[in-house]
Amino acid sequence: MENIFTDEYFMKKALQEAEMAFDKGEIPVGAVIVVNNTVIARSHNLTELLNDVTAHAEMQAITAAANFLGGKYLKDCTLYVTLEPCQMCAGALYWSQITKIVYGASDDHRGFVKMGTQLHPKTVVVRGVMANEASELMKRFFAERRK
Amino acid sequence: MENIFTDEYFMKKALQEAEMAFDKGEIPVGAVIVVNNTVIARSHNLTELLNDVTAHAEMQAITAAANFLGGKYLKDCTLYVTLEPCQMCAGALYWSQITKIVYGASDDHRGFVKMGTQLHPKTVVVRGVMANEASELMKRFFAERRK
Repeated sequence: MENIFTDEYFMKKALQEAEMAFDKGEIPVGAVIVVNNTVIARSHNLTELLNDVTAHAEMQAITAAANFLGGKYLKDCTLYVTLEPCQMCAGALYWSQITKIVYGASDDHRGFVKMGTQLHPKTVVVRGVMANEASELMKRFFAERRK
Repeated sequence: MENIFTDEYFMKKALQEAEMAFDKGEIPVGAVIVVNNTVIARSHNLTELLNDVTAHAEMQAITAAANFLGGKYLKDCTLYVTLEPCQMCAGALYWSQITKIVYGASDDHRGFVKMGTQLHPKTVVVRGVMANEASELMKRFFAERRK
């Protein structure tokens, strides 16, 4: 039987979260955290609504996943996020010792790769999963804001 | 009249917060955020109690200060924190565009300076204020943990 639980499968759920952010006028970034093929946290950017620069999708997902697991280390967890994490989120992921990070679109200006933020040595990174979809959503958001 | 509102004055308040963390069995780091010589946020590390790697003193202080101000940018604010911020906290401070950061002890392993985390170009940094007191508290904490 074919495995339906591909990276694309979970990234679609992160994209649904990004669309929810879009609908609220937030920069459209969404995230889910998965363990054993089960989504244990889902979130989207809420920096405008909460007036809080720390309310990125990833930060909320890390807190929610740790709460679900009853422990602060995200062992055996995979984060799916539509946009490359920033310094803050990569720094939080470093502390969480998360097993895997899968992201969609790259952020060549403020992403952790450009910024040189260090992840935990245990963490595997997969990039570019459904990058076009994530990128198109961002472009549509900023085009509408410029109107 | 002598100005009582020195960096030491506010760092003492951050140290009081660090002692509260110590008493709870948390790595003793404390922070306050000040605007116009008034403390608008105070916090200490709660990562163990909350089971949450994002619950550093600085992160909580940023959220609380933004809540107090009703806006997410920490204009004219100074953060006093007993230990040099990590990548995550420096990344959050970057987004906050905070005016000034004053820290006590350096963290030569996981501090933002060693890690190369970028702060906002507007942000001024002062280091080493009451560094010995902050450092002694950390040493005492880890010495007691090893017993």
